[in-house]
Amino acid sequence: MNTRIYNARLMTMEKGCSIQENGEVWIREDTIAYAGPERPTNCMFDREINANGNLVMPGFKNAHTHSAMTFLRSFADDLPLAQWLNQQVFPMEAKLTKEDVYILSKLANLEYLTSGITANYDMYLFPLEAAKASSEMGFRTVLCSGLNNFSFSLDQIEQEYETLNHFHPLISYQIGLHAEYTTSPELLKSLSALAHRLSAPVSTHCSETENEVQDCIRRYGMTPPAYLDSLGMFDYGGTCFHCVHMTKEDLELFARLGVFIVTNPGSNAKLASGIAPLTDMLDCGISVGIGTDGPASNNCLDFFREMFLATALQKLRLKDAAALDAEQVLQMAVTGGAHAMGLSDCDCLAPGKRADLILIDLHQPNMQPLNHIAKNIVYSGSKQNVKMTMINGQILYQDGKFQTGCDPEEIYQQANRIIRRMQED
Amino acid sequence: MNTRIYNARLMTMEKGCSIQENGEVWIREDTIAYAGPERPTNCMFDREINANGNLVMPGFKNAHTHSAMTFLRSFADDLPLAQWLNQQVFPMEAKLTKEDVYILSKLANLEYLTSGITANYDMYLFPLEAAKASSEMGFRTVLCSGLNNFSFSLDQIEQEYETLNHFHPLISYQIGLHAEYTTSPELLKSLSALAHRLSAPVSTHCSETENEVQDCIRRYGMTPPAYLDSLGMFDYGGTCFHCVHMTKEDLELFARLGVFIVTNPGSNAKLASGIAPLTDMLDCGISVGIGTDGPASNNCLDFFREMFLATALQKLRLKDAAALDAEQVLQMAVTGGAHAMGLSDCDCLAPGKRADLILIDLHQPNMQPLNHIAKNIVYSGSKQNVKMTMINGQILYQDGKFQTGCDPEEIYQQANRIIRRMQED
Repeated sequence: MNTRIYNARLMTMEKGCSIQENGEVWIREDTIAYAGPERPTNCMFDREINANGNLVMPGFKNAHTHSAMTFLRSFADDLPLAQWLNQQVFPMEAKLTKEDVYILSKLANLEYLTSGITANYDMYLFPLEAAKASSEMGFRTVLCSGLNNFSFSLDQIEQEYETLNHFHPLISYQIGLHAEYTTSPELLKSLSALAHRLSAPVSTHCSETENEVQDCIRRYGMTPPAYLDSLGMFDYGGTCFHCVHMTKEDLELFARLGVFIVTNPGSNAKLASGIAPLTDMLDCGISVGIGTDGPASNNCLDFFREMFLATALQKLRLKDAAALDAEQVLQMAVTGGAHAMGLSDCDCLAPGKRADLILIDLHQPNMQPLNHIAKNIVYSGSKQNVKMTMINGQILYQDGKFQTGCDPEEIYQQANRIIRRMQED
Repeated sequence: MNTRIYNARLMTMEKGCSIQENGEVWIREDTIAYAGPERPTNCMFDREINANGNLVMPGFKNAHTHSAMTFLRSFADDLPLAQWLNQQVFPMEAKLTKEDVYILSKLANLEYLTSGITANYDMYLFPLEAAKASSEMGFRTVLCSGLNNFSFSLDQIEQEYETLNHFHPLISYQIGLHAEYTTSPELLKSLSALAHRLSAPVSTHCSETENEVQDCIRRYGMTPPAYLDSLGMFDYGGTCFHCVHMTKEDLELFARLGVFIVTNPGSNAKLASGIAPLTDMLDCGISVGIGTDGPASNNCLDFFREMFLATALQKLRLKDAAALDAEQVLQMAVTGGAHAMGLSDCDCLAPGKRADLILIDLHQPNMQPLNHIAKNIVYSGSKQNVKMTMINGQILYQDGKFQTGCDPEEIYQQANRIIRRMQED
């Protein structure tokens, strides 16, 4: 299907966050054919969408999440990370079936669509089930193994790497470990060897809490970034999630290695883990994306909240209201995330890029007056402003209605049944 | 008009945040007649609303804002408070006409409705215009004078106190000053005398920034709370906004005087002012409400964002994920705010109380599964979940449509014209 969106304010994000008035976008099947000022054409379009002056921009990239954890939303809040993980999360996760993960991933995907998120980077159990859920719904998902002492194996990861990178155009797979503190040195070394064999980057949680860093130093005499690097883990690059407690040397190391960082401000605040030094990362030249983390820790999958937190917490951390301005945040939310996920063809709206885009409703009181649209989005935007979410040229969400081929009510009922079943076990 | 809302989950907040399944609410004109479990009745209703299992709860009280500052949204962000106020806000405010304030207040009221806010506590220029805007739209507003060396006078305040407290059932007025640092000792003393003459509480910004507190100590040898109290300012109670930098003695003083505090976490974060010690306030027995502050500093008027920030920032401040749980936040957002604004008949859903209520859409992915509805609202809720906002028995917002008797598009256009006119001046 060929689509034309016209009468739009357009933020392609090809270079910065400037706005094109009277812009239009042409989409050929799953690909952007044109994005720029209004211009005459003889092309025939199957569908023409009048954007009514609203903003067309690339979709947000949720560069770190655990989608299927939707079942634990609001289940065990208000606990410190270690207690929350060991006493609440792990025992319930042990009861998860692959059918559960399929349903619970669909629930998360619906929520992503309401927030203008067009791709997620997902580390969780049963990645094949998440791949099925996303591909069936038309959602773009990059999966990531979460190797640790209790789940995943090297063989499984190598097999999934092969299978899931050829599964569906919307799906890809990267190798990863859960975290240094849940993975034995032997396993870590084998994963590093696999990364070398595949010439592949490695993703992992890293330096999320002060304790994690101190424990790693006690164990190995090094911080998590330094220790993982000492194993050659990032010789083909990588993406590290959280990175709240980073030394200057850690940041310089990641800059040198070209390791991407994904920040999770909502989860880090809610679990009292701290505030990541985002401005220091950017100053070092590290490319930073944003993630919601899983719905059990955050507890929502809302990029508007994450974007505001990303900047607001830097301002607090540095006691500087000028820290991390709105345009830097938008670039992290779109371009930085795409790079961290290996989605180089989803980072902006330009010919040849995938048609992953959103329509932001400016005809809402929180977007008026139009003093500065990028600032309005970061400082004042909300899911309520997401008028349309398109992935790979398909409209999956429009005016509050889902077009994913599945019945949301049925998914809600199934999700409630899953958590009730686990509680009754 | 008599209304029945049935098939609802009901959180009356009369005592805590418990949920009544299969609840209903009867409304006689502007007043709650019944709120409790489903029960048979012979009453005739003009309107019956099937809540479809969604949540009915009292509306949020935005207990500190400057509504008409909508014109400065995203106009001068990323600056420290003093510079933002002196170089950007004050020069533009000098160009405001009363007609501007009327339009810009309407714009804010529309935004409040989208966030389930059913009343605002507004300190700004031309309060009569804000009163007209709100009463015409059916919105509930408590106005407050902002006495300082440059605007308002004692005579004006005394006259407005009389006029606006008899202006319309939806409007009330309280006396207040902008802040210690913008008001001379002579003016402060006269305001205190007026408070005594009227037996009235006094509202003010207080201890918002570290500088403000240090300057006050340099000037008077006392913190702002102690200095204002030394003038007898709070002898009939009062409400203090922000209160970010409070000593133990300040908090004990406010607890003793029965002074309410309204916290503004979004604004305090964005302007890098700091994190208010909310848990210490509650531990002292102070009643705390929540406010968005004005749209020029926040930049939005979204209570879901404020509620999440209220708790998330406490967790970060105390390095304790258990700090300030979701139910405490909801009570601040509703009951605490109502008390701080003098709206004792809007603090919960019970017979005789005003029918200021909202319908929260639980049939959305971010509200599923229903593990804990109060936590879902605070940790995962968004404006997108506001299905209906009712004030004084009138539905003003439903399914994304406004029913306020004014055309939103016209207001957006007028707001844009106002800021353009000011820039061209």
